[in-house]
Formats: sequence, C-alpha cells, structure tokens
Amino acid sequence: MTKRSKTKEKILKTALGLFNNEGESQVSSVDIASVMGISPGNLYYHYKGKDEVIVALFDDYEEEIRMVLASPVNEPLKLSDNWIYLYIIFEEIYDFRFFYKNQSEIIARIPELRSRFARILSLKEQTAFALLSALENDGHLAFDEGEKGALAGRIAQHFTFWLQYHDLRHGTAPPKSLIDQGVFMTLIQITPYWTNPEGYAALLSEFAEGKA
Amino acid sequence: MTKRSKTKEKILKTALGLFNNEGESQVSSVDIASVMGISPGNLYYHYKGKDEVIVALFDDYEEEIRMVLASPVNEPLKLSDNWIYLYIIFEEIYDFRFFYKNQSEIIARIPELRSRFARILSLKEQTAFALLSALENDGHLAFDEGEKGALAGRIAQHFTFWLQYHDLRHGTAPPKSLIDQGVFMTLIQITPYWTNPEGYAALLSEFAEGKA
Repeated sequence: MTKRSKTKEKILKTALGLFNNEGESQVSSVDIASVMGISPGNLYYHYKGKDEVIVALFDDYEEEIRMVLASPVNEPLKLSDNWIYLYIIFEEIYDFRFFYKNQSEIIARIPELRSRFARILSLKEQTAFALLSALENDGHLAFDEGEKGALAGRIAQHFTFWLQYHDLRHGTAPPKSLIDQGVFMTLIQITPYWTNPEGYAALLSEFAEGKA
Repeated sequence: MTKRSKTKEKILKTALGLFNNEGESQVSSVDIASVMGISPGNLYYHYKGKDEVIVALFDDYEEEIRMVLASPVNEPLKLSDNWIYLYIIFEEIYDFRFFYKNQSEIIARIPELRSRFARILSLKEQTAFALLSALENDGHLAFDEGEKGALAGRIAQHFTFWLQYHDLRHGTAPPKSLIDQGVFMTLIQITPYWTNPEGYAALLSEFAEGKA
C-alpha cells in the first residue's frame, strides 16, 4: 500500500465509505470534509478535489487486485480453493464497488483511469484463461475451438458487471452475501466443460448449500 | 410507434444520433436544437428539456424490444433462425446504445426509467429461459439443477453489458460488425448444454466464419 499520512488515510477511508454507500455522484469533497469534521480547505491541502481522491483510491484498488490476480490457486482441482480464490476477487471488487457502479461516468471524467481499467480487465481475462488452461492440461476440462477464450472473457465480464447487474435487476444496495452468489455463478459457468460434469455440478450445489 | 408530429420525430431522430455517437452526457438540448437549425425555445415547445427527449426515446425502444422479445423463433432448432432472432435483439440494443453505455447515470437522473429498465431485463431473462426450455423439452439441451436459470440470466446479462464491455476493453466506438460477434458469444454459451455439443460447436464455427 502506498505510504501516506494519517490524515490522507482517513480522508480515503471516509470517501470510500461515502462513495460506496451513497453513490459517488452524490458525494462532494465538501461532504467528505464535513463528515470528517475538518474544513474543505484542510482537505484541499491533502487532495486537490474529489477526482484526486478517486485516483488515490484507484491506486489502492489496482495494487490489491493485481496482487490477488497474481497469486496462484493452491490446488486448482479443489473446489474449496477455487471458491476462496474467487471469493477474494469478488470481495476486492465489492470493497471498491463505487468504481463498478459508475464506471462509464468515472472514466469519462478522469481519462487516465480508462487505460488502467482496461489493463485490469485484460489481466482478469488472462488469469481466468491461465486457470482454465491448467485444468485443461490436466485433462479435467475439455474445450472446443474458441470456447476457452470465450469462457475466460465471460468470467472477466462477470466480475466487471456483477454488481451493476444486481443493481439494475433489484435496485437495492448489494448485501455482502452477494459475493457467495457471484462465486457460484462463476463456477457454474465452468461446470459443463468438466470432463465429468454431472459429478462436478452435484458437488458444486452441495458446496453452495453448505455455504448458504 | 407512438403518433407524433413531424417536428417531434425529427427532434428524436437527431437526438438519438447525437447521443449514440457523441455520448449522452456530452449533448445538451441546445446542441440538439442547433443541429436541427431551430431555436432552443422551439425545441422546448415540443419537449421540456433533454430528459423528456430521453423518456420519449425510451418509449420507442421499449415498444420495439418488447415486440422483438414477444415474437417466437420460427424453428428453434435451426441455427440460422436463432442467429437472426438474436441479431435483431442485439441490433435493437445497438440502435439505442446510448442507454446502455450510460445506464446507471441515466437511471439515477430519471428514476421512472429504473423500473422500466428492470422489467425489460426480466423479460429478456424470461425469453431466454423459454427458448432454452423449448429446446430442453425436445431433448436437444440437457441441464443440471440450477443451470438453466443461471444460463438464462447470463444471456440477459450479456445483452445488457455487451456494449459497455467492448467500450471498457477497447475504448472505441462499437462498429456494427460487433453485432455478429455478440450473437456468436451468446450461442457459444449454449453449446456445452447441447446433447451433441461437438457437432453443434463445429456447425456454429462454420456458420460464424461464413458470416465474417
């Protein structure tokens, strides 16, 4: 994590809470200062406006998600290991969910974030592709031409739009339990490519019920 | 289509072109009037501001997409019929793509569109579910528990975020050829559930190459 003063850390933590819970577009830098009980001038001394706060939060998100994506799954064959790995990815996205609910708007306003978002997305696709390839090489998954790349793309797409979809469909703040559902919806996409799909599907259902 | 005066039709057509190509947030009602060569006052006489124009465009979109979703596929077993059906859905979304690129922002600003968007999304899911069920009942698709509903949800999700995903990933205006790719990415999701998946995948690849 980037080294920062205590005040900077507190500003970022306060802003993240407000953005996530009230929607980024509803929160001004004056709101952030007022919740912290400091003057807008004091806040401005640390960050020159809301967009600088957002970029600093993105620095943190980027660092964390890159670390998660780079760490290999211990045993790709063990359902619980896959579950935990995906859970951590979804949790990371959940923790910075305001980015995902307002992506297009934030990108339009802060152009430097566009390419950084695109790189994370591409990294997610590569990670999914590598995981699927490992399972394929061991004979546990089987793909026809083009299917593996398409599936990796869909998994990355699922990470990206999972929260927006919930928001559009239900219009409520996403409960944290949504993370388990996101993981389940990812794994069920892979099910039909297992060389023993029925066995895997049964196992997956059982596991999901145990978690619920 | 709703009956409207010629001027109203022209306003909507102009606005749709501007919104789609320049981004809804970049276009004001004064811009629309200026492109048409009429005064802002004249435009205001027909529509009280940009959001009324957007709601009128949504009326059209809603009417058309409902009509498309309600019309049954002639022969669900024929790949070309499925392709055309999906093509028409994607084309409809493409024609009104500004809604999909800025969804969360538009919904936050015009709350009446939230529930209407949610209903269309739910209708897309139901349509996908019905089509999958028809093919399952005839013995052409096989699902394990929960898979059919999950797949229908993913297809609806794919319709909804397909353009945003392209935008995030590539940051360019979507070419119309993207529609064929969207259709292919939908059908390839269904492939592994066919009782004869290899034959279907080969057919699908051939068909897609013929189109490309």
